[in-house]
Amino acid sequence: MEKYSVIGKSLPRVDAVVKATGEAKYTADMPHSGMLHGKILRSPYPHARVLMIDTTKAERLLGVKAVITGKDITNIPHGPARAAPAPPWFKDKFALAKEKVRYIGDEVAAVAAIDEDIAEEALDLIEVEYEELPSVFDPKEAMKPDAPRIHDHAERNISAHASFHLGDVEKGFQESDLVMEEHFETQYVCHSPLEPHAVAADFSQSGEVTLWVSTQTPFFDQVVVAEALGIPVSKVRVIKPHVGGGFGGKADSNPPFPIAALLSKKAGRPVKIVHTREEEIVCTARRHPVIVEQKIGVKKDGRIMAVDSRLIANGGAYNSIGPLTIYLHGGFQNGPYMIPNFKYEGNRIYTNKPFCGPQRGHGALQTRFVVESMLDMIAEKLDLDPLEIRRKNGLKAGDITPSKFIIRSSGHIESIERASDEIGWKDKWGKLPEGKGVGIASNFFVSGAGFSFFFDNPPSHSGVNLEAKEDGGFTLFTGTSDIGQGSLTVLSQIAAEELGVSLDQIRVIAADTAITPLDFGSFSSRVTLFAGNAAKMAASRMRQILLEVAAESLEANIDDLEARGNRIYVKGSPEKGISVSEAVRAYFQEKKEPLSTKGHYNPPIDVGDASRFDKGEVNMSPTFSFGAHAAEVEVDKETGMVKVHKVAAAHDCGFAINPMSVEGQIEGSVSMTFGQALLEDFQMEKGWAMNPSFLGYKLPTAVDMPQVKSIIVESLDPEGPFGAKEASEGTNIPTIPAIANAIYDAIGVRIKDLPITPEKILKALEEN
Amino acid sequence: MEKYSVIGKSLPRVDAVVKATGEAKYTADMPHSGMLHGKILRSPYPHARVLMIDTTKAERLLGVKAVITGKDITNIPHGPARAAPAPPWFKDKFALAKEKVRYIGDEVAAVAAIDEDIAEEALDLIEVEYEELPSVFDPKEAMKPDAPRIHDHAERNISAHASFHLGDVEKGFQESDLVMEEHFETQYVCHSPLEPHAVAADFSQSGEVTLWVSTQTPFFDQVVVAEALGIPVSKVRVIKPHVGGGFGGKADSNPPFPIAALLSKKAGRPVKIVHTREEEIVCTARRHPVIVEQKIGVKKDGRIMAVDSRLIANGGAYNSIGPLTIYLHGGFQNGPYMIPNFKYEGNRIYTNKPFCGPQRGHGALQTRFVVESMLDMIAEKLDLDPLEIRRKNGLKAGDITPSKFIIRSSGHIESIERASDEIGWKDKWGKLPEGKGVGIASNFFVSGAGFSFFFDNPPSHSGVNLEAKEDGGFTLFTGTSDIGQGSLTVLSQIAAEELGVSLDQIRVIAADTAITPLDFGSFSSRVTLFAGNAAKMAASRMRQILLEVAAESLEANIDDLEARGNRIYVKGSPEKGISVSEAVRAYFQEKKEPLSTKGHYNPPIDVGDASRFDKGEVNMSPTFSFGAHAAEVEVDKETGMVKVHKVAAAHDCGFAINPMSVEGQIEGSVSMTFGQALLEDFQMEKGWAMNPSFLGYKLPTAVDMPQVKSIIVESLDPEGPFGAKEASEGTNIPTIPAIANAIYDAIGVRIKDLPITPEKILKALEEN
Repeated sequence: MEKYSVIGKSLPRVDAVVKATGEAKYTADMPHSGMLHGKILRSPYPHARVLMIDTTKAERLLGVKAVITGKDITNIPHGPARAAPAPPWFKDKFALAKEKVRYIGDEVAAVAAIDEDIAEEALDLIEVEYEELPSVFDPKEAMKPDAPRIHDHAERNISAHASFHLGDVEKGFQESDLVMEEHFETQYVCHSPLEPHAVAADFSQSGEVTLWVSTQTPFFDQVVVAEALGIPVSKVRVIKPHVGGGFGGKADSNPPFPIAALLSKKAGRPVKIVHTREEEIVCTARRHPVIVEQKIGVKKDGRIMAVDSRLIANGGAYNSIGPLTIYLHGGFQNGPYMIPNFKYEGNRIYTNKPFCGPQRGHGALQTRFVVESMLDMIAEKLDLDPLEIRRKNGLKAGDITPSKFIIRSSGHIESIERASDEIGWKDKWGKLPEGKGVGIASNFFVSGAGFSFFFDNPPSHSGVNLEAKEDGGFTLFTGTSDIGQGSLTVLSQIAAEELGVSLDQIRVIAADTAITPLDFGSFSSRVTLFAGNAAKMAASRMRQILLEVAAESLEANIDDLEARGNRIYVKGSPEKGISVSEAVRAYFQEKKEPLSTKGHYNPPIDVGDASRFDKGEVNMSPTFSFGAHAAEVEVDKETGMVKVHKVAAAHDCGFAINPMSVEGQIEGSVSMTFGQALLEDFQMEKGWAMNPSFLGYKLPTAVDMPQVKSIIVESLDPEGPFGAKEASEGTNIPTIPAIANAIYDAIGVRIKDLPITPEKILKALEEN
Repeated sequence: MEKYSVIGKSLPRVDAVVKATGEAKYTADMPHSGMLHGKILRSPYPHARVLMIDTTKAERLLGVKAVITGKDITNIPHGPARAAPAPPWFKDKFALAKEKVRYIGDEVAAVAAIDEDIAEEALDLIEVEYEELPSVFDPKEAMKPDAPRIHDHAERNISAHASFHLGDVEKGFQESDLVMEEHFETQYVCHSPLEPHAVAADFSQSGEVTLWVSTQTPFFDQVVVAEALGIPVSKVRVIKPHVGGGFGGKADSNPPFPIAALLSKKAGRPVKIVHTREEEIVCTARRHPVIVEQKIGVKKDGRIMAVDSRLIANGGAYNSIGPLTIYLHGGFQNGPYMIPNFKYEGNRIYTNKPFCGPQRGHGALQTRFVVESMLDMIAEKLDLDPLEIRRKNGLKAGDITPSKFIIRSSGHIESIERASDEIGWKDKWGKLPEGKGVGIASNFFVSGAGFSFFFDNPPSHSGVNLEAKEDGGFTLFTGTSDIGQGSLTVLSQIAAEELGVSLDQIRVIAADTAITPLDFGSFSSRVTLFAGNAAKMAASRMRQILLEVAAESLEANIDDLEARGNRIYVKGSPEKGISVSEAVRAYFQEKKEPLSTKGHYNPPIDVGDASRFDKGEVNMSPTFSFGAHAAEVEVDKETGMVKVHKVAAAHDCGFAINPMSVEGQIEGSVSMTFGQALLEDFQMEKGWAMNPSFLGYKLPTAVDMPQVKSIIVESLDPEGPFGAKEASEGTNIPTIPAIANAIYDAIGVRIKDLPITPEKILKALEEN
């Protein structure tokens, strides 16, 4: 008999049917009685003082039910809450501008009307008097003493700063045989979920407001909306319908949420706001473009001795969660390799551009592009195989880094081997004809955050409730957000396995701040490990109760019982047993009360000294994922066009609760980062978006895609549920440097700024 | 300081604002994406065989998305499930007729279309071939051997039969000084909620169906829909929006619920069905009209020695919950007086009329009219004051009846005294000028059922979950249905009192079979005692946990602490304390897990021998309510018109959790039964409804209403939460006989069939 009945299997998702049939309701699909349509007036200036807003004409337009401006918002700035020990940063944005606008697209006023056309027309009738201010778009320019000051609190427009020094970097470089220093740059990348941000809000005169939100973080949105409206958190209810993708962009709480709530309050009717694609591209967070000066010192054998990393990120007009990004850019350099001496200076700079925040592979993707490119450059200088330098430095289970990361499991070496084998490394690397090449890069990511950044006093990081039904089914309550990644299926599989029932016996309720237990949300690749452990605990407690009931009924020793296939029976004697339904009924008969259990998860407290957080010297996560992607490319030296033939993507997810879901995550990641490597580039001129549509902003399509071979590596992590770690953001990281390294192998030129366009390749070939 | 902070106070209802503003969403108000409108084709014959149904033309009509007939329904008859120890009865109805129709209005086919007009038009296009059968409308005719047989299983058309014999009735009559035998009749009365039956169903291709239902019993509807569709109960989710009245008519699961689900399944879109007023009047359950032969034997001093009661009820075409009604008609005669010897024969008869079921005062109202009228007749013969004969026979706390009813508390005598005092009995009874009079009648009812009639293996009769929030608020999950009676406010007050927090700290979630714990529903006046006790248990457990946390924090003994005003503090030293919110946070910090508790209630098991159920010799309820209404009337002997000036209504509700709500229940009851006494009468000819609208079916309006003086009597029941018993159906019972007795006092004629119309009064005066 197989070890597991439900987990480790590629079962169809619990929401597969409703998504395939179109029955699944997304926020924009849901009608509400008396619903109005909300639209937002946005700034046409990159930097200006708002002198006067006259909404009179708009209010008089037939069909307009409410108009609001910054005056209607409380003086508590809109933005992520922050709890110790996160680095200090300002909540620097109001859902509607109060005094100044800071980028073209900044929210200025909003209208609710009986249809979208009237709302649009009303926007045109709002008169705003601006005093234009000098603006700045380049972060290095913005750091100059005479640059326009975008926020009063930010000297030299520094939005956030992080500074780590672990070990002794000077000594490390002195002891190095080779020290290399390089300059890298990355571009703006937009999240581009197929479902844009959407919200419907229904404010009751009882003082409560209910919101349906396309979000990764309903409990966080609850706080943000309460603050913007100046009402208690308990008066805000956030319900998460089906969500069509987030990728980090829906982990930030966006202005439309409190705006819809305020419009509804003023109009006395429900109000829906759905971003247009242009708004989605311009007016939500995006990935930080960064400028990195990276210095790496190594011994002759390739052993890394020291790293000195200086990063400047263009943060755009507001903070969002960007200050954390800057912290993570430093933190994530402490893997997947052992860095004995490490120094990092990161600066996030305000400019008059759209703001940047978390995006899949948050804080790790840019860094990985830099380091994995440089490892290949170093290997070449030292005449080492790129596989060898990675193996030599790779973190292993049991390691503790100078940054106090505890490596509980690592499939890093196995990932390198399996990805390189799959791509045919031995036969191809350095051996393919001119124009063809292979490359590899490794990966390192957290499985959730070790700290509560956004909640001061949560009951737990993840809570799960489980209730038994008479028919042997169970209802699982979780506050997590399935945003398309399949987390509800994974949680259901975990609970079903633990309970010994089939997957269809689990009904999941998620997420609703009034009903489901608090969960921090879907970000930092935390759900499988955090909510998974909570689900496992709840199910395990439930199982224990049912085994006790069954032991009594079967007159058997509890240790001799097994729960499997919707039955509880004596091991080895399946006929001597009762159904799970019978066990539940027996419990009801004996106890005369409902049967429910709770589970929760908090990251282990062996994380080091939290007071060292801002020194970058504290464990960031319960555990870490590893992986390696190998790419095979072909470059047309005439046109500069790159064709990626194949990506062999190995990912150490600890244990694959649902292998098909892990493969889906890997394939989605390859698509996403293949796009960032070669195609995607959000371009601006003087603060104006040049390509705010899918015509101009080039996402890869199915025909562009390389062949993807997903390789699941299972290191059976001791902290994860059944050994599982994340398979969400980590998979999104190593494709870009693998492609860059393969291009170098193919044509001998190294592109160090993204995206790798034909123009850059032709220019590099010319200069070579 | 007052004993209680939250209970015992007339606090506004928790849903007062949303109902006053119109924000509250009822089933018919709720839009659903892609929603269709359902309509039902009904039988135009009182009794006929359905030979053929051709839906071809209807299906071809543009805009029609689904047409269903009886063939689409499973062979499990629609109707209330039944669990031991209820008397046996048949589930005798299909949601759509399979072979026969049995009354004009019986469901035959149904259509879902894009609007109501097209659905109506499609009904006209359905061709049905009927073979008309002989019909019977009068129950006595229907009992004759040669009467048309309406259901194959029912010989002599007897739908249900109940037969009790407690003590020795013959001996009782022999020992009596006076034996009186009388004949009474009552009419059809319709429930007439302002919100008619309504349902929206959304069947997913995943196999699950969600229904929004205007219902008193969501968990019961869940089972009925699952049976009709042939799917597991767990695949049916019933959500109860706000409900605009039920009065017992929404405790039966109606055909539109499974019909909407089936239409949705076939159409692949949500389907809503809302009864027209005509359908609401004709095609839902109504109060049984009864014919009663009642024989009472008494001693000279008025002491009751024996009662022999024979009842024939016109059940109409189907059972509904009617067989239970027949049982209750016997059972409820064992109070509010001690009946040492009691015999009862009840027969419920099928006829080709709309079916009858539970209505407020279920099984007790008709009986009370009979007995309370006869007590006055007997008192007159014996020259006793009507108050005296009631006091002499009245049940007292500590009594156990021959039917094994345990009287844990009784405010009966106090109710008689306070109601009679309020009406000015001593100065008025027998002393008012001709044409004016006063009358009194007593009351007796259950506080919930002692048995589970509809669920075979429930976890408990009522379950409540409670979850603590960081801000010191609590979410209360209950499966009960607030149908306008204010039960959610009462449950919130109970929880708030126990927790020592203010009412606005409690948020109630109710009811949703997927989310809220199982509760049998809102019927048999059970919610305050059953769910109230469950809420009290959950809150008490929560309080204990918070007191432990506070004791530690305050370094105090737990017994010295008090929870009140959202704080926990040392008794007598309010400054030495912490807020409830602080206690919750302290729990989170210490335990690192969510804080929730559960409560449940099951009726006490000292109910006697359940196997004696069908002999009428078992305790029916955890406890019983009492009361007395006194009425003052004026009768115009020229016209026969009765004017009721005042009703003084005393009700022993044990303890008034919310006095304003109790007063509301009393006032609503007086309106409802004043209507039944004098106005309401559903009339039929040859199976056709003669007055299926509020024009012809006369509900009392505000201008008709007598002055009502609500008198709350508090007997502090040991089984009720804080002493509370029901204040829901009991209040609905004694107004009719009080008015009948007052009319006799005014003009010396006794009307023994309802309603008491001017015609009947004039005829009686003539015959006098």
